Amino acid sequence: MNGGGPLVIAGIDPGSTRTGYAFLGLEGGAVRAIAYGVIRAPRSGAPADRFLHIHRELLALALKHRPREAAVEDIFHHKNVRSAFMLGQARGVAMLTLALGEVEIFSYPPAVIKKSVTAYGRADKLQVSQMVKAILGLPQPPPADAADALAVALTHAQTVRFRRLGSSSRM
Amino acid sequence: MNGGGPLVIAGIDPGSTRTGYAFLGLEGGAVRAIAYGVIRAPRSGAPADRFLHIHRELLALALKHRPREAAVEDIFHHKNVRSAFMLGQARGVAMLTLALGEVEIFSYPPAVIKKSVTAYGRADKLQVSQMVKAILGLPQPPPADAADALAVALTHAQTVRFRRLGSSSRM
Repeated sequence: MNGGGPLVIAGIDPGSTRTGYAFLGLEGGAVRAIAYGVIRAPRSGAPADRFLHIHRELLALALKHRPREAAVEDIFHHKNVRSAFMLGQARGVAMLTLALGEVEIFSYPPAVIKKSVTAYGRADKLQVSQMVKAILGLPQPPPADAADALAVALTHAQTVRFRRLGSSSRM
Repeated sequence: MNGGGPLVIAGIDPGSTRTGYAFLGLEGGAVRAIAYGVIRAPRSGAPADRFLHIHRELLALALKHRPREAAVEDIFHHKNVRSAFMLGQARGVAMLTLALGEVEIFSYPPAVIKKSVTAYGRADKLQVSQMVKAILGLPQPPPADAADALAVALTHAQTVRFRRLGSSSRM
């Protein structure tokens, strides 16, 4: 969805009522936060209405920021079957929305994301938020869902930089 | 998605590699099967590609058969967290696809569906398939995923008939 200029990377932290999002611009070696926040789906109302809400909001954000690649957390473990099912639905909706816009989607295990932003794999939510703030020079720590979206986007930005180093060394 | 003529009801049995579908026509008191089958998503390839495949196939079927209402199984229990998560993703994709076409979606617990088509709540897959064949006068028992989609669509058709009886009695 993006021609010249910086590579825009989306980070998504899906949830049935709160979906965190982040858009990072990667240009040269520098990464900057373009936008981040939380899509709040109405708690009341039918699940289908919540899915439509997530779809429309995420589509509007994607049209505005035009990411070419996106990253989501790969969740193998979760508290319980019911919450895994609910989360799965929201994740399917978010991934389909991005895939319809030909955004290439990458997924990363939680431990890799935490290690990527905090240098060790067992950081709590507050530490992730503070590290994300420090790395991107944000005015204040982002809210939890947005912090997770920023963290997965940063993890992918790091992968892209390694990929580019790799291709440079082959030239 | 449908003006005059029969009310078309879609039944969906989502899965990450196999999504069962059924379209029933309800006219007067009679129900007939319009179409049923299985959308097979490629096992290989990225999850996003599987979601796109389910979305496109289901969208094409919806445009062809123009359901106004749809029914899906409501799954509270599942074997394990991982499979609940995978199933949730496919269900979110299927529900978003139908909701984008303004199809109203209803969900039914598994026990209600089994009771609706087999008169008791603990039928196995073979019994469901045979009962669905008998009720709709199909030439042969449908494959398992399509049978589940037909069963949930039949459950909703029954609800619609009760709803209509209810509104007639009020006149």
